[in-house]
Amino acid sequence: MAAVNASSEAGLAPVGIALVGYGYWGPNLARNFHSLAGSDLRYVVDSNAQALAAPQRLFGCATSTDYADVLADPAVAAVAIATPARTHFTLAAAALRAGKHVLVEKPLTMDVGEAQVLIDLAAERNLTLMVGHVFEYNPAVRYIRAAIEAGELGDIYYLYSRRVNLGRVQSDINALWSIAPHDISIALYVLNALPEAVRCQGSRCLNGQVEDVIFLTLYFPGNIICHIHASWLDPSKTREMTVVGSRKMIVYDDVSTEGKVRVYDKGAFRKGDVTYGDFQYKLHSGDILIPRLDMREPLQEECAHFLECIRSGQRPLTDGENGLRVLQVLAASQQSLESDGAKVALGAA
Amino acid sequence: MAAVNASSEAGLAPVGIALVGYGYWGPNLARNFHSLAGSDLRYVVDSNAQALAAPQRLFGCATSTDYADVLADPAVAAVAIATPARTHFTLAAAALRAGKHVLVEKPLTMDVGEAQVLIDLAAERNLTLMVGHVFEYNPAVRYIRAAIEAGELGDIYYLYSRRVNLGRVQSDINALWSIAPHDISIALYVLNALPEAVRCQGSRCLNGQVEDVIFLTLYFPGNIICHIHASWLDPSKTREMTVVGSRKMIVYDDVSTEGKVRVYDKGAFRKGDVTYGDFQYKLHSGDILIPRLDMREPLQEECAHFLECIRSGQRPLTDGENGLRVLQVLAASQQSLESDGAKVALGAA
Amino acid sequence: MAAVNASSEAGLAPVGIALVGYGYWGPNLARNFHSLAGSDLRYVVDSNAQALAAPQRLFGCATSTDYADVLADPAVAAVAIATPARTHFTLAAAALRAGKHVLVEKPLTMDVGEAQVLIDLAAERNLTLMVGHVFEYNPAVRYIRAAIEAGELGDIYYLYSRRVNLGRVQSDINALWSIAPHDISIALYVLNALPEAVRCQGSRCLNGQVEDVIFLTLYFPGNIICHIHASWLDPSKTREMTVVGSRKMIVYDDVSTEGKVRVYDKGAFRKGDVTYGDFQYKLHSGDILIPRLDMREPLQEECAHFLECIRSGQRPLTDGENGLRVLQVLAASQQSLESDGAKVALGAA
Amino acid sequence: MAAVNASSEAGLAPVGIALVGYGYWGPNLARNFHSLAGSDLRYVVDSNAQALAAPQRLFGCATSTDYADVLADPAVAAVAIATPARTHFTLAAAALRAGKHVLVEKPLTMDVGEAQVLIDLAAERNLTLMVGHVFEYNPAVRYIRAAIEAGELGDIYYLYSRRVNLGRVQSDINALWSIAPHDISIALYVLNALPEAVRCQGSRCLNGQVEDVIFLTLYFPGNIICHIHASWLDPSKTREMTVVGSRKMIVYDDVSTEGKVRVYDKGAFRKGDVTYGDFQYKLHSGDILIPRLDMREPLQEECAHFLECIRSGQRPLTDGENGLRVLQVLAASQQSLESDGAKVALGAA
Repeated sequence: MAAVNASSEAGLAPVGIALVGYGYWGPNLARNFHSLAGSDLRYVVDSNAQALAAPQRLFGCATSTDYADVLADPAVAAVAIATPARTHFTLAAAALRAGKHVLVEKPLTMDVGEAQVLIDLAAERNLTLMVGHVFEYNPAVRYIRAAIEAGELGDIYYLYSRRVNLGRVQSDINALWSIAPHDISIALYVLNALPEAVRCQGSRCLNGQVEDVIFLTLYFPGNIICHIHASWLDPSKTREMTVVGSRKMIVYDDVSTEGKVRVYDKGAFRKGDVTYGDFQYKLHSGDILIPRLDMREPLQEECAHFLECIRSGQRPLTDGENGLRVLQVLAASQQSLESDGAKVALGAA
Repeated sequence: MAAVNASSEAGLAPVGIALVGYGYWGPNLARNFHSLAGSDLRYVVDSNAQALAAPQRLFGCATSTDYADVLADPAVAAVAIATPARTHFTLAAAALRAGKHVLVEKPLTMDVGEAQVLIDLAAERNLTLMVGHVFEYNPAVRYIRAAIEAGELGDIYYLYSRRVNLGRVQSDINALWSIAPHDISIALYVLNALPEAVRCQGSRCLNGQVEDVIFLTLYFPGNIICHIHASWLDPSKTREMTVVGSRKMIVYDDVSTEGKVRVYDKGAFRKGDVTYGDFQYKLHSGDILIPRLDMREPLQEECAHFLECIRSGQRPLTDGENGLRVLQVLAASQQSLESDGAKVALGAA
Repeated sequence: MAAVNASSEAGLAPVGIALVGYGYWGPNLARNFHSLAGSDLRYVVDSNAQALAAPQRLFGCATSTDYADVLADPAVAAVAIATPARTHFTLAAAALRAGKHVLVEKPLTMDVGEAQVLIDLAAERNLTLMVGHVFEYNPAVRYIRAAIEAGELGDIYYLYSRRVNLGRVQSDINALWSIAPHDISIALYVLNALPEAVRCQGSRCLNGQVEDVIFLTLYFPGNIICHIHASWLDPSKTREMTVVGSRKMIVYDDVSTEGKVRVYDKGAFRKGDVTYGDFQYKLHSGDILIPRLDMREPLQEECAHFLECIRSGQRPLTDGENGLRVLQVLAASQQSLESDGAKVALGAA
Repeated sequence: MAAVNASSEAGLAPVGIALVGYGYWGPNLARNFHSLAGSDLRYVVDSNAQALAAPQRLFGCATSTDYADVLADPAVAAVAIATPARTHFTLAAAALRAGKHVLVEKPLTMDVGEAQVLIDLAAERNLTLMVGHVFEYNPAVRYIRAAIEAGELGDIYYLYSRRVNLGRVQSDINALWSIAPHDISIALYVLNALPEAVRCQGSRCLNGQVEDVIFLTLYFPGNIICHIHASWLDPSKTREMTVVGSRKMIVYDDVSTEGKVRVYDKGAFRKGDVTYGDFQYKLHSGDILIPRLDMREPLQEECAHFLECIRSGQRPLTDGENGLRVLQVLAASQQSLESDGAKVALGAA
């Protein structure tokens, strides 16, 4: 950590960063670590040499197909990993063992035990381990958590999320592992709770090997249901979460061009006409508020937070334990999926 | 059928209709049977005398709080029943026994056996028995069925429906029985198939007695999943169904003001860059077509079809068997709901 | 006013109404006067006998092709006129002379002088004369006026309106006279002011005789511009008005399904970076509020207000003078249209 | 043009580019010229030294506050100018005189005569002069032009455009010169014609010196009206153009997330009911098509086209004459604006 130690107040030398994996998401990390004042993107690594021409031209950084180059370079203080999920553990463990801080894209690993190994490695070496649950750095998601915590929504009844589009078809992991980590991360964060059990159903449409669409239910304490629908085989691009409370409701639409959060004042119950001896109630909506949210890019927030944690030693918001909790939900969900949708208690996986 | 036989001129006399139940939906039936040339709305019956002032003024028809008046009147050839679901069987059976044709709002009854009784009663007496699955008379729904039948969508992968709003809270029946019959009816109709099994989860938010929100999965032959989300406790009014096929996809948005059906041409698979030895495919969408649909009111179509069936003796599109099939799905779903979401095979209920 | 004097029971006898003109808009008036408790729809008159079958069946009222029948009937206290605009004056004058209260659809007449004649006739006979500027009974429009009056928007900078669709092509009057009266009525109402001058341009696309599309500018005191775009030859159905003030802005979208009024908090001016010695300011939007508005049908409000004015003798909100002011704007606009878009001062027409 | 001549291999050396002006739009040009394979961004120049830190870090290029540095550098083959409009002429003329190819942001200059000087300078020196009318490189705009040229829309009746937002308030130029050049450029391009006359009205809301909102009408040959509404003081971000033809209509919504172009099949005229002796026609819409458009960034297309023109010597699509035509429309519009909206013939300015 020579680079960081050689800091000076106003002041600090930028953190030397190596990015591993320049596929779908890697370019976004590279762009941010290149443009942030606190970091110095020194390496982009990809096993595919052809993928390296672009980052070389765009960022003027070193490139390599050999991860060992990065681990051996003392100027690299931190490694950002944006490779396929199944490689996360091996790459992250090697980086930690080489004394590098690590930012891993979601999911942290594919296995709960492996995640614990990474957590322990980072703790032993006093290194920052962070997982890229980028939505926890999103001002809309933070608004929802704050509203829930402040009691503005009243009791939480249920929430549901839909994250679908016509997009990248993956053949090595299913829609649960590829897409739903976002929704799980958001749900755990806004409710500040861990589900007790899960149930997951899915359908293999394209290649018969992985689920292209999944329907997932998280059972939180207090009878709060969170339902998640994720798919990469859908006509419309939707990224939407609804939280229904006893006082207010929130819809978070991440693709809205006008304002991503809408707060619905539910208004009072109104007793309707009595017909056939049966009481009927009618809910009616009240005012709707679209709050102004700060428009910073969540990924930039995440990257800046990673740099700040490296410098200060503070725990990241999305630290290894955070990634482990999401992973526990994923593992139980996968078990449910393989058991034809049986309910699976967390910890049983 | 004296009324019908006493035809004249163009030439048939209008069918004498009595409406039972002037609550939420009844006024719509009354308006249609009043305005259609082929019918004569003679009675509106409601146990609540106060509810009868409005139909009397609007339609100039007789009103009564006593159902027996209607059954005894030979000028009444047919009875339309828009009362709470738990009263459907008794009222419909009495009408059939009195020799009246019957249109019952959905669900046909609350019990599979009772539905069979109604079917048998109608058959014995050669009377028309029809259930008000109004969406099967909706041009958007018919467009979807035709597109599927013509193979335009290719193989059907899965479909899902969301029917939620902030609306009538019911205390005697849950969201499954109150709202989902529409989605079940549409799914069975467009796929022209019956599910093999179902799974239903729900949440009791408001009063602890009935589910205000349910998530229902229908398992159709051929590994086709249909997922249904229904709630009366939701900030946004949504009535949307998506059908995903191997060639095209359709979104039917019933609250859209521009065109309720969108047909998405899926375009070709596009092989993406090979990264980390893993093949990735990317789907991309093609043209979108919003077909012009005829704008007739589905309920008017339904009412006219009822009149036509009475006159001609043809079986209604949504006949008793149709209503029974929806009921079988509802019954199995209710059993799943009461079994904490266990999968329930149809016929096992 | 025999009918009204013969009050009874809850109190007053319903006002006997005759509707003249059962074409595009007449059915809506008939429906409301039929369903309102305070009125008794006794007649529907149309010169086309075939048009009368529907109202006879729907409302059970008398019908006639002879307007004289209505004028001679003492049970008719008021006449609602929904005929082509060029016939308004003759029909309304005859009704007033026969001692009937009169509701005329917009525009009141085609000529300023004729409008004054109607006003004078009503005043002399102490009769209610009302023009059907229905948007002044719309809760969204009233919200805007209240917000402006309360100073909530700050200084009004400008407003603009678009009212276009693919709809009824008229051959006797142009889009200015057919569509824009709504926007003019709204503008005069929300600003509570009369423009000093107007400018109108248009295009004759279909038949070369009347303008299918017009662009109209109203110059209000205080340098407030109101721009209106009206057309019946447009792909999208739009009914939208925007009011820009120094503190807040309002968009009123009459075809929105979520809430017709949006109030934009403009937020503070933010001084941007200084570049090239030039100060740049950047406006940024703040919270958006979608207020809950009462959902009553504006036309029902209008009809009830007409009945109330007849009973109480109060001046209608949209009285003859109101209709005359709109007409003055229309006449000046027509003169501008015929002068290739020259600016025309009000009163100069 | 040493840089270009020193071609090699695949074969050509990248074109050395200097960007002048790193304010609002400059960073977009810098990003593209940095990332395109055919160009080498060598300089970013801005009179504000503080603005230069960002491009230095992001692109690793030289920076300067002295334009003379660029003009003297033989490695700079071309200059891209993104400074305030009033500086365009001086900077562009100097670059051309120094033998550099020039890309100028819109508007080309503030004066017709100055534009002609630039055109002549470029012609004399055989240099590429291009103006950044970026929408002519937009696939949606190209689709519209192709549809018009192919006769798909039938006769063109009229078009209108709205380009408003709450954005950069300018104090040196008004909304006509700042925003409307886009709409004028699009209109001239899709119609492939020059207007005969213009009329422009506006309102000075904020500082009393420049118009924050303008309403502009272009009168094209064949009685085709194009109406343009531009403002930087508006609650909603709108970038929309509608073209109405006798056979079809197109709406181009640049902020739509689903597809930017919609083609409306107008359907047949339908003769309505005859009422009051007046024939009424009713238009009804037919199918709507949302064609798939290629999603390349228009600015990238523009930059690549500039490079290609430099290499090949071909005339740019948006060459100096193109920029001059837009300028002629702007100049006539400005004269109309200063004459209280009088109609001004093109060439009269």
